[in-house]
Amino acid sequence: MWLTTHCRIDFQVGLPTPFIFMLRPGSDDRQWVAEDALSVEPAVPVTEYRDTFGNRCQRLVADPGPFSIDARARVRTAASAATAPGAPFVPVPDLPASLLGYLIASRYCEADRLGDRARHLVANEWPGYDQVRRINDWIRAEIAYRPGTSNVPVSALETLARGQGVCRDLAHLGVALCRALTIPARLVVGYLHGLEPMDMHAWFEAWVGGRWYAFDPTQAEPRGGRVAIAYGHDAGDVALFTQFGPSLAPTAMTVSVERCD
Amino acid sequence: MWLTTHCRIDFQVGLPTPFIFMLRPGSDDRQWVAEDALSVEPAVPVTEYRDTFGNRCQRLVADPGPFSIDARARVRTAASAATAPGAPFVPVPDLPASLLGYLIASRYCEADRLGDRARHLVANEWPGYDQVRRINDWIRAEIAYRPGTSNVPVSALETLARGQGVCRDLAHLGVALCRALTIPARLVVGYLHGLEPMDMHAWFEAWVGGRWYAFDPTQAEPRGGRVAIAYGHDAGDVALFTQFGPSLAPTAMTVSVERCD
Amino acid sequence: MWLTTHCRIDFQVGLPTPFIFMLRPGSDDRQWVAEDALSVEPAVPVTEYRDTFGNRCQRLVADPGPFSIDARARVRTAASAATAPGAPFVPVPDLPASLLGYLIASRYCEADRLGDRARHLVANEWPGYDQVRRINDWIRAEIAYRPGTSNVPVSALETLARGQGVCRDLAHLGVALCRALTIPARLVVGYLHGLEPMDMHAWFEAWVGGRWYAFDPTQAEPRGGRVAIAYGHDAGDVALFTQFGPSLAPTAMTVSVERCD
Amino acid sequence: MWLTTHCRIDFQVGLPTPFIFMLRPGSDDRQWVAEDALSVEPAVPVTEYRDTFGNRCQRLVADPGPFSIDARARVRTAASAATAPGAPFVPVPDLPASLLGYLIASRYCEADRLGDRARHLVANEWPGYDQVRRINDWIRAEIAYRPGTSNVPVSALETLARGQGVCRDLAHLGVALCRALTIPARLVVGYLHGLEPMDMHAWFEAWVGGRWYAFDPTQAEPRGGRVAIAYGHDAGDVALFTQFGPSLAPTAMTVSVERCD
Repeated sequence: MWLTTHCRIDFQVGLPTPFIFMLRPGSDDRQWVAEDALSVEPAVPVTEYRDTFGNRCQRLVADPGPFSIDARARVRTAASAATAPGAPFVPVPDLPASLLGYLIASRYCEADRLGDRARHLVANEWPGYDQVRRINDWIRAEIAYRPGTSNVPVSALETLARGQGVCRDLAHLGVALCRALTIPARLVVGYLHGLEPMDMHAWFEAWVGGRWYAFDPTQAEPRGGRVAIAYGHDAGDVALFTQFGPSLAPTAMTVSVERCD
Repeated sequence: MWLTTHCRIDFQVGLPTPFIFMLRPGSDDRQWVAEDALSVEPAVPVTEYRDTFGNRCQRLVADPGPFSIDARARVRTAASAATAPGAPFVPVPDLPASLLGYLIASRYCEADRLGDRARHLVANEWPGYDQVRRINDWIRAEIAYRPGTSNVPVSALETLARGQGVCRDLAHLGVALCRALTIPARLVVGYLHGLEPMDMHAWFEAWVGGRWYAFDPTQAEPRGGRVAIAYGHDAGDVALFTQFGPSLAPTAMTVSVERCD
Repeated sequence: MWLTTHCRIDFQVGLPTPFIFMLRPGSDDRQWVAEDALSVEPAVPVTEYRDTFGNRCQRLVADPGPFSIDARARVRTAASAATAPGAPFVPVPDLPASLLGYLIASRYCEADRLGDRARHLVANEWPGYDQVRRINDWIRAEIAYRPGTSNVPVSALETLARGQGVCRDLAHLGVALCRALTIPARLVVGYLHGLEPMDMHAWFEAWVGGRWYAFDPTQAEPRGGRVAIAYGHDAGDVALFTQFGPSLAPTAMTVSVERCD
Repeated sequence: MWLTTHCRIDFQVGLPTPFIFMLRPGSDDRQWVAEDALSVEPAVPVTEYRDTFGNRCQRLVADPGPFSIDARARVRTAASAATAPGAPFVPVPDLPASLLGYLIASRYCEADRLGDRARHLVANEWPGYDQVRRINDWIRAEIAYRPGTSNVPVSALETLARGQGVCRDLAHLGVALCRALTIPARLVVGYLHGLEPMDMHAWFEAWVGGRWYAFDPTQAEPRGGRVAIAYGHDAGDVALFTQFGPSLAPTAMTVSVERCD
């Protein structure tokens, strides 16, 4: 399916402020960005680089006053989610070396403290995809999805304690539980067609049966219509924007995803 | 300055043909691609990857019949060329390791056979930028620029023997002579605003004084208005399109570069 | 100076256990590993890969029973520490893109919660090297260095609260305070000649004046004789060994560093 | 099997000469370098970096006078060659993007001029491994292996014309013929246990059935006991030594490979 994605963020800047944005989806073997436009107002120089995950990052310095950034893309992506019940767990010795970093506990995914819970949770599941599905279902059942309730990233343990969270928090918990089982897992931020209420979104991916599969504990069923913007160990790697200087919240943010086949 | 670039290539395909295209300029610290669109007709799946030089490459399989690819971009780039008379030669031991590959002879740049000529040519120049400028001027004076006279890449030695060539051939000679002096040099393909006649273009860059500088032996004066699409050791790395299967020339190709400030 | 480094770690393994070790220093432009030997007993297959930081990582599966790994190297490294009083702070917009990741808060370096303290601490220092030196001196004065007091990594905030820590903990605090000032900083693990008591060591590096400088809050004076094994954002990236399966502490560990000019 | 490899090269240097050496085998998932020592005499500073293929490269500047470099390693490698009759050809659209560069003609492997010959040669073979084996057998039958007959790299076309060559020349021909069939192929330099006469060696690898397989047209049967030092598109990428300045042949070179299980 073809989707048109759009995100605009407005700021009121007090001092000249260096920013790093991650707002441009990239093309790879799972999604194809046929068109792509990014503009800033007022116009300041922008440069782009790739981080160690391959994500596209935009750098600029915003001057004092109103500042907005606007990112649009036309993207082809799978209309339905890839699922693979029974896809097997891959033992650590058989994992590609490039995936081993996705087994390590990280700031928001304290996998090293969730081993007992993770093992208990999946005790009756076939190792691999079915375990991750069980984790995803359990999060959906146990942790209330409350869009808009947290502004800063919350860790898996905190999310567990609170019993609720935004999409990113639920995804952190999914990542941490997978890693606790030595299943490689990563956080994804991007767009989801049909998300209610529409907003930037986050979900997680787990590597079973020899490839990455998307899981989304905020949704009742596996869904396609996803456009990934950035991948990382956790939210620390994939902030939509990072600013250096006095703290600065957006004054407005609009997101839309339209079908355009 | 802001430029709108456009390239369209048409083929008449006989058998299903895998293609690799390099038609999308990337953003870096020297040019900023604010908008970018690539379409193919008929619509077939396209994926994108980065080669070892960081160039964006598009993969697809074209079906039999007419096939066209169309790439547009809106790019900010420097309006005038960076020049640096007197910028010093950097001795090999002081070069960053990532540049050493740009000293090695390659298929179309037989630097290992041009040492005497290169040394003779720059004997009276200050080592570094001035040597490269001398090389560039000499090529411009001695090798006739004949757009449209070669279809396949021609090496530096062949170009020297023929005394004429297309932009790419002249650039190969520039690269080879620089490397013969242990000055890192690379081939660039892309767009040049105001090129007459308009076409895809090629030039070369040499690394002196701690950075890359563009040189273009087809032009009377250093010029800005350049949008790079791909960098490489020589034309073998930066073909606009590579096809696998029976040889297949484009039936049509149009290129334009318009100012859009 | 030339150093011979040696580390041996013994385990008593209960179940077949996948391990990742980081025990082999690599050669780069700051240290030269002329000889290098790594052996395991009993002999099991070992493979090696590089992580995203370029660190050498060894993978293997240890069988039940006693297991030991032994790493030796002969390395040339600087005899005295590079210092650069007055070396300037590099503003964020001027940092190479590859360093931006070293500004982000990480699991054990909560830079985002230490801004006020960091700014207060360096208020009277010239921005750059002198600020980092002040941070280093302050840690040395305020946080007691207690080799052997922690087994698992402790974060900068926890270290501050405890008022004491091992080398790694003090280094985490240094990293976090630097990042809070938008100075890129990273954790280093390796060997230090003359360390008392001898053990594997950790320190930190800060990027000021256009390069990395080493700082070590456990030592009274800047010291050379360092052999780096691994670099990372924090201890999460540079564990000497990572095991998958039931927790397993070494039964013995010996470390030595001898001069061998 | 465990092998001890040794290579020593002596030069008589006239002017201070920058060198790049590739003399240290690296560990990967196919060979394990347990011990590794590299020394130079007289002792000058050496640094090491990885090229874009991941090969280990040593940089130094040799002073006037006698200069020697000595590389030893103890390596575990497969005792017998991996073979896979029937392993299938992988169509271009299914190749991993990282392999596409191994399809392109290069300086010493003019694949673009060998299409007819290659297709004719393998007309009766099952696409994939069997085609490469046929190419290898054909080279062995048609091109005389004459150790020591060429000093500079010779291209596939030249080798074909001469009807004889050193190991590297025969390997170039194998690489070029494979690429002409759109089978990814690369040149390997390294050690071969039992080679007669003992010397540094070169062979090629082709990617069929989802992995690289080694082929060696200098040997009657597939053989193990190989220690790879460097991989590349052709000899231009994998010179054992590259010097910058007046041409300089080794005054002596000794190579040995001993079994040490």
